[in-house]
Amino acid sequence: MTKTATLLVNCPDKKGIVASIANFLLTHNANILHADQHQDAENNLFLMRVEWDMADFQLTESEFNEHFKLIAQEYAMTWKLKSNQIKPKVAIMVSQYDHCLADLLHRYKNGELDCEVSLVVSNHKITESLVNFYEIPFHFIEINKENKIEAEQRQFLLFDQFNIDLIILARYMQILSPDFVKRYPQKIINIHHSFLPAFIGAKPYHRAHERGVKLIGATSHYVTEALDEGPIIEQDIDRISHRDQVEDLVQKERDLERVVLSRAVRWHIENRILLYSNKTVIFD
Amino acid sequence: MTKTATLLVNCPDKKGIVASIANFLLTHNANILHADQHQDAENNLFLMRVEWDMADFQLTESEFNEHFKLIAQEYAMTWKLKSNQIKPKVAIMVSQYDHCLADLLHRYKNGELDCEVSLVVSNHKITESLVNFYEIPFHFIEINKENKIEAEQRQFLLFDQFNIDLIILARYMQILSPDFVKRYPQKIINIHHSFLPAFIGAKPYHRAHERGVKLIGATSHYVTEALDEGPIIEQDIDRISHRDQVEDLVQKERDLERVVLSRAVRWHIENRILLYSNKTVIFD
Amino acid sequence: MTKTATLLVNCPDKKGIVASIANFLLTHNANILHADQHQDAENNLFLMRVEWDMADFQLTESEFNEHFKLIAQEYAMTWKLKSNQIKPKVAIMVSQYDHCLADLLHRYKNGELDCEVSLVVSNHKITESLVNFYEIPFHFIEINKENKIEAEQRQFLLFDQFNIDLIILARYMQILSPDFVKRYPQKIINIHHSFLPAFIGAKPYHRAHERGVKLIGATSHYVTEALDEGPIIEQDIDRISHRDQVEDLVQKERDLERVVLSRAVRWHIENRILLYSNKTVIFD
Amino acid sequence: MTKTATLLVNCPDKKGIVASIANFLLTHNANILHADQHQDAENNLFLMRVEWDMADFQLTESEFNEHFKLIAQEYAMTWKLKSNQIKPKVAIMVSQYDHCLADLLHRYKNGELDCEVSLVVSNHKITESLVNFYEIPFHFIEINKENKIEAEQRQFLLFDQFNIDLIILARYMQILSPDFVKRYPQKIINIHHSFLPAFIGAKPYHRAHERGVKLIGATSHYVTEALDEGPIIEQDIDRISHRDQVEDLVQKERDLERVVLSRAVRWHIENRILLYSNKTVIFD
Repeated sequence: MTKTATLLVNCPDKKGIVASIANFLLTHNANILHADQHQDAENNLFLMRVEWDMADFQLTESEFNEHFKLIAQEYAMTWKLKSNQIKPKVAIMVSQYDHCLADLLHRYKNGELDCEVSLVVSNHKITESLVNFYEIPFHFIEINKENKIEAEQRQFLLFDQFNIDLIILARYMQILSPDFVKRYPQKIINIHHSFLPAFIGAKPYHRAHERGVKLIGATSHYVTEALDEGPIIEQDIDRISHRDQVEDLVQKERDLERVVLSRAVRWHIENRILLYSNKTVIFD
Repeated sequence: MTKTATLLVNCPDKKGIVASIANFLLTHNANILHADQHQDAENNLFLMRVEWDMADFQLTESEFNEHFKLIAQEYAMTWKLKSNQIKPKVAIMVSQYDHCLADLLHRYKNGELDCEVSLVVSNHKITESLVNFYEIPFHFIEINKENKIEAEQRQFLLFDQFNIDLIILARYMQILSPDFVKRYPQKIINIHHSFLPAFIGAKPYHRAHERGVKLIGATSHYVTEALDEGPIIEQDIDRISHRDQVEDLVQKERDLERVVLSRAVRWHIENRILLYSNKTVIFD
Repeated sequence: MTKTATLLVNCPDKKGIVASIANFLLTHNANILHADQHQDAENNLFLMRVEWDMADFQLTESEFNEHFKLIAQEYAMTWKLKSNQIKPKVAIMVSQYDHCLADLLHRYKNGELDCEVSLVVSNHKITESLVNFYEIPFHFIEINKENKIEAEQRQFLLFDQFNIDLIILARYMQILSPDFVKRYPQKIINIHHSFLPAFIGAKPYHRAHERGVKLIGATSHYVTEALDEGPIIEQDIDRISHRDQVEDLVQKERDLERVVLSRAVRWHIENRILLYSNKTVIFD
Repeated sequence: MTKTATLLVNCPDKKGIVASIANFLLTHNANILHADQHQDAENNLFLMRVEWDMADFQLTESEFNEHFKLIAQEYAMTWKLKSNQIKPKVAIMVSQYDHCLADLLHRYKNGELDCEVSLVVSNHKITESLVNFYEIPFHFIEINKENKIEAEQRQFLLFDQFNIDLIILARYMQILSPDFVKRYPQKIINIHHSFLPAFIGAKPYHRAHERGVKLIGATSHYVTEALDEGPIIEQDIDRISHRDQVEDLVQKERDLERVVLSRAVRWHIENRILLYSNKTVIFD
């Protein structure tokens, strides 16, 4: 695999940004592989993703940080550099339903997800053998009304221990505490089993069936404190008819959830997502 | 065109219904062309659509009504017979945006909609020349805060005069009075420019843009007293990205609205829609 | 699970068929759960699927066969009765790519596929541990230019031994001999990695990339002697852009293949597929 | 409307291209609104689209051409500059089926297509009144086996007279001569009523119906000498079932053709399409 670096930039729009970045990269002999940018006129924002070959590039990552800082300051950028040689460390949280988990693990094994799945945490033991099959550490942490804070503390310890960069809620049926959410900003991806903002909250299948919609959906999003209101990363839908009962919706949803969650995870891992105004820009 | 009749049946589910209907049709020499049925176990409902060739059929429409009444009573059916020789009379209501109107009129002229478009009613004059081009009567009825009731009275008179069977709200930007809605139960089809139940009410495009959804939708539905909560007939979606501004959403929506509204209208005209529990069954 | 029976009927169209079947079922006290029929005027065909509750039904399966024979003869029907109590026995054949296999096994375990996966046959050992995880017999049968006939003989023996009703080619990269195909008419389902009839044959991804199509597809079909020309059961597509290289197509295709193959398998297992004129009718 | 310029660039990939262009634009005080680029490693190609605000830009179009030439030569670029103030002149060719024509004219009137529709040429008179309604010159040019060359000569004269930049074949059912095609390279857009490369040539609906596909498609492409083999611009599909007869396919296709053709036309007009290796890059 070609060794590459990806730079994500987010700043107020201003003349000269592209030239500054392009010149910086050229000066240090970067061979640009992909570049995509987006201006949001309404919010006066400049957003960019650029990926280059590290083969002839003259800076190490820490040198890059040092030198690029000057440009970043000039344009008031928030920015992130990512090498494809350093794989983000991922924790998957799951409850009883294992379709998203099984899908993610299979993709991971196939090389489709360029990360390291460090552990799976569950409040049920049902997925343990599946996780074992993929030779990933499985941690059972029971959760009930009494021990929620304590259970989350144990989860934090694990995430610290494994230096977790990304937490995937793969149909994890517990609501995270505000403390949990604050601790991992833009680092928790959830899959919601409806086409948000329709059917926020519990039992979206039943409510979709009752409302008589003709399409059902799934939504992956970053978790923020407001339930189901974080920035949407990806959505997809499937057609249903009067013949579909709630159990058919559940089955069709499984296919949607797998695909929608896995896309969000892949884009996050490949540094393709920029956040602003509670929205995402996906550089694909 | 083959002369056919279509029967729609809605009743509590019970053994023997299919046999009774099939025997009745056979006895009177019907050649069945299409038959579709649906049982809703949850609500113990039997729903059926059957279409037959009238060539060798031995009953006239009124004879059918007389004879079939007995079966209908036995099974407590609500039912509707429709001959494809009698074209439903349609009124289209529209405001400034003419894309749905232009689409419906073009389909009508092409023979895609088996009805008679009797008139177009608008609170703006902007579409008049288009309607004239298709040689359909155009009625301008101004609406403002003061004259709403009176304006609707004038609309009712027109609908009575033309024996209107179906009213299409083709981006008609006025809220109908409860009296209007009650007067035409299951006879008013609206197009809403969002994927209901997301973005009920005003300015769905702007709210979709603000929420950062990745798909936008359109919904056609029967109008009931609760705004945007009538039975959904059809929905469809299109993908958007961060590059799409509100005006791009508007443009993509136009394509959705045209297709989604025209499908609903066609299915209604072809007697393919059964209503129950605020939902639709589409026999396609 | 409710005990039900499903009847599939295929015969020349003629008045009285529906009444005959409905009366027969009523006489023997069937409670019809679903019924769907289709007339193909062009080919003068009558096609029907009817499913009923066996709870109060007065005939056993063999009694049904005996009694229904008379009606079947009268209308020259080909027909098939299937009880949902008897699970079809399935063999999966696979080569190196395991995404369809993993998907089918996970669905099977989840109860989504109402069958018995009796064995997996492969010309590679790579999927053995996955198959073992699901506790299904795995049979490695090497295939090369010299031993093809002999290898197929060994496969036939296995299929006989397990009384296989359905063979799924889950990315099995060997072309079956005419003898193999003839032996299992309408009992072999393949997944082809293109939108047939586009890109029949080898390397469809590369050819799609080269042609510059904007959508890629996958097709599940029954296997017949003409390669990739059997009756199509299901197809689906995904959008691609100039950014997608061949390896991206491969990745997107995996998602399509899984969904498209699994739908075809489920419909076959649930007796929802009727064949005529090298086409399928799917009663969904 | 903001006055903008769009530059399309196509050249061998080489370090420094982005910096050169960015510096050039910055030097002349361009405010970049959108920029997108694509590298095709396989073909060692660099492709770019950049759009900037002309408000503070210091060069006129001809000055741009003069100055940019130097960079273009250095990198062996083919390039195209387009001002959004100069509307491309468009000719629409059509035969009997008017759904694409009606759609294009309605979009044009609505301001969705930023061009000037200069004339409509047809070998039938059936669309004349529609074209007149939109106050566009209509030219009837009869075509038969004897007069084809002469008829095309008359068409060329019209296109010359109106300085036509783009010819849209909106279901124009005549095959253009090689001479015609050569005369307007990358300036003729056709809509083909199938999902190319499936069903190349005549009667795609009938062949799709006969083959029993589950999805039908439409394809817009540039016309080249090889029939239906020009670079694909856009494709889309719709789902069909066994219930759809050929006439239903025709109806569904109409909706596909309208949308697929209008997207291709809009992208062409907005200078979003780059061509290479008989493929298109769409900068959206």
